[in-house]
Formats: sequence, C-alpha cells, structure tokens
Amino acid sequence: MNQDTATPGSVRPGGRTARVRESVLRAAGDLLAERGFAHLDPAEVATRAGVGKTTVYRRWRTPAGLVADLLTEMAETSLPHADTGSLRGDLLANARLVAHTLNDPRQGRVFASLVAAATCDPATAAALRHFYDARLAEWSPCIDAAVARGELPPETDSRAVLSAVSAPLYYRLLNTGDPIGDDAATTAAEAAALAARAGLFTR
Amino acid sequence: MNQDTATPGSVRPGGRTARVRESVLRAAGDLLAERGFAHLDPAEVATRAGVGKTTVYRRWRTPAGLVADLLTEMAETSLPHADTGSLRGDLLANARLVAHTLNDPRQGRVFASLVAAATCDPATAAALRHFYDARLAEWSPCIDAAVARGELPPETDSRAVLSAVSAPLYYRLLNTGDPIGDDAATTAAEAAALAARAGLFTR
Repeated sequence: MNQDTATPGSVRPGGRTARVRESVLRAAGDLLAERGFAHLDPAEVATRAGVGKTTVYRRWRTPAGLVADLLTEMAETSLPHADTGSLRGDLLANARLVAHTLNDPRQGRVFASLVAAATCDPATAAALRHFYDARLAEWSPCIDAAVARGELPPETDSRAVLSAVSAPLYYRLLNTGDPIGDDAATTAAEAAALAARAGLFTR
Repeated sequence: MNQDTATPGSVRPGGRTARVRESVLRAAGDLLAERGFAHLDPAEVATRAGVGKTTVYRRWRTPAGLVADLLTEMAETSLPHADTGSLRGDLLANARLVAHTLNDPRQGRVFASLVAAATCDPATAAALRHFYDARLAEWSPCIDAAVARGELPPETDSRAVLSAVSAPLYYRLLNTGDPIGDDAATTAAEAAALAARAGLFTR
C-alpha cells in the first residue's frame, strides 16, 4: 500500500495525505480567522486548499469535524514546555507563549473563533477541552519539577496553576478587550506562582 | 406628552416604554440562551415579547442593537458591590456572584453567547467592554476601601484586582469546561487578594 492509498484519516508525515491535511487545515484556520465558525464552509475550504470537495467532505464531514482536527493539529504542533530551572521562569515562559499566540493577528482570531464556536457546538466544545487537556499535560512537568525542587507544596494541582496563568490573558482577549502586553503576561505568571507557593492550588 | 408618545429609546420606569423594553430584552436573552447570537432574529424576539415587529426594528434595529441594550440593562440592574469590611470578604462576595451568574443555566449561556458574539461583531464587542467597565466601576470601591484600610498598597489598580477574580471563572466556562464550584470561587478570590497584597496589581 503506497501513501496515496492510505486509509482515509491516517497521517503519514510527508506523504500526500499529510500534505492534503496541512493544506485543508491551513485554509480552515484562515477562514476561521477571517470570518469565524459560522461561515466555515467545507466547500470553500476545499477550494482554498486546492483539494477536491469530495475529499474534504469524506474525511472531515462537517465544519465541526474540520475544527476538531485543527485543534488536534494545534495540540500536536504546539511548543514543548519550558525548562528554565525555576517555577517563575517556567510560568513566565508559559504566559509569554500564550500572550504571543493571542496577540498574533491570525492565531488570536482563530482562538477567539474556536471559543465562540464551542459555546454553541458540543463537538467543538469537546475538541477545545481536549486541546486544553493536551496543553496542560504538556506543561505539567514544570509544576512537578517545582514540587520536586521544594518550590511548591506536594499535591499542587498543575492544571490549576497553569489555568491561573492563562485565564487573565484570555479574559483580556474575550471579555474586556484590554491589551495583552508583556506586563500582563508577567503579572499573570507572578500571581499564579505566588498563589501556588501559598498552597492555594493544592488538591 | 404622555408615556406612550415618549421619545423612542427613552426609558420611563413603570411606563409602557419600560414594559416593552423589559419584555423585548427578556425575549432576546431567552433566545440568546437557547440558540446563540447567530440565531437572534428581531422578528422572533418581537413575537415572543408580544410586541409589534415595527417597534423592535425601529427601536433596536439589529441583533447587535438588541444585545447592546441587553448589556446596558444587565449593567443597570446588576447587584451593588459588597461591603464586608475586609478585602477577602469583598472579593469572595464578588467571586461568588460571578460564579453564581455563570452557573445559572440561562445566565451562563447568555454570557457565553455574548462573548461569542463579541468575537465576530464589533458593536457587540464594544457593548460587552462597556458592560465590564460598568461592573468594574461598581466594585472598585471595595479595592479603594482596602487601600484606605491599609490592606493594599497605594496605587493598586482596582480593574486588575477585580479582573483577576473573574478571569479564572470565565476560563472554566469558556475554555476548559471545568466546573465552577464554590472551591473555584474561593480560590479565585484568595489568589487575587494575595497578589494584590503583594503589590502585583499596582499601576
């Protein structure tokens, strides 16, 4: 079996299936950034990606299917966790990564659109939860290392600490519209570190 | 000039204009909670409110106009700030109010829909920002009082403190889908108080 006859949905890096997926998800992300989930038309995604409509409908089926796979790819390709040797350094790296992503004109709009879609589409909501689970799992070793170094109390909940870093930055993006500057990222990281050290995020 | 010929858009508490507004905004909120902004049809709002379509179109014009006025009403009728005598008590009251609102089946969906609408509609985004400005202004005396009592450093930014309380709760609603229990509200309030006392939220 060569790459071109791979099982639909399987991914072979560098193969035709992988290239089609990359083009389709790129086009889906572009459309999400430009117009939001409500106007994510699989046929237009196919046209923009230079791929047959049948391919898109067979493999991704619906706008929610496209968004779920986009979130899977975002989780797969997102940056590995930092390892700066200190809790403050690691949380600051995390906060700056989130701030950089949300400030990026395309990525910020993609995330806002995904959150918006999740409010009215259960499949997108599940995919979004799964994406955050993957991101939190990727960065949780930073919290475990801080516990091992004695910087944090045992039983510290890594999900709670990392959520505390991200939450104020998303709140600016989605709720108040306040700018997400480096000062906001620094404050988010330092406030989360302070609360974690004080034992507020223990299980 | 009697109540029935009041200037369109003016509000006379208890008068016909006020009653029409209350019915229309109630119907708009119900539809937002049920289906989201994308399906907020002014004609259906009129039917549900028992009001002529012309009235709705003349006074609110568009779905965004309905949402902007709904947010204005929500700001007008939201509860006054707490005055418990301590920063921790006031922030806990604030966190519990936010958690209660987001956990309410109707109100939680209304807020999620409003945030979603704001990601793709600039007029709704402006109305949402204005709503949060009003809420933050209502509660800022709690922070000023804590500064006056010597609980917080001078130059503490009330907007930053109060945003830190709300952000983790909205992050659960919109991003991770984690439950918004009383433990989450308490942690949000205590983490914000700790960071504020440490001077992380000074201007």
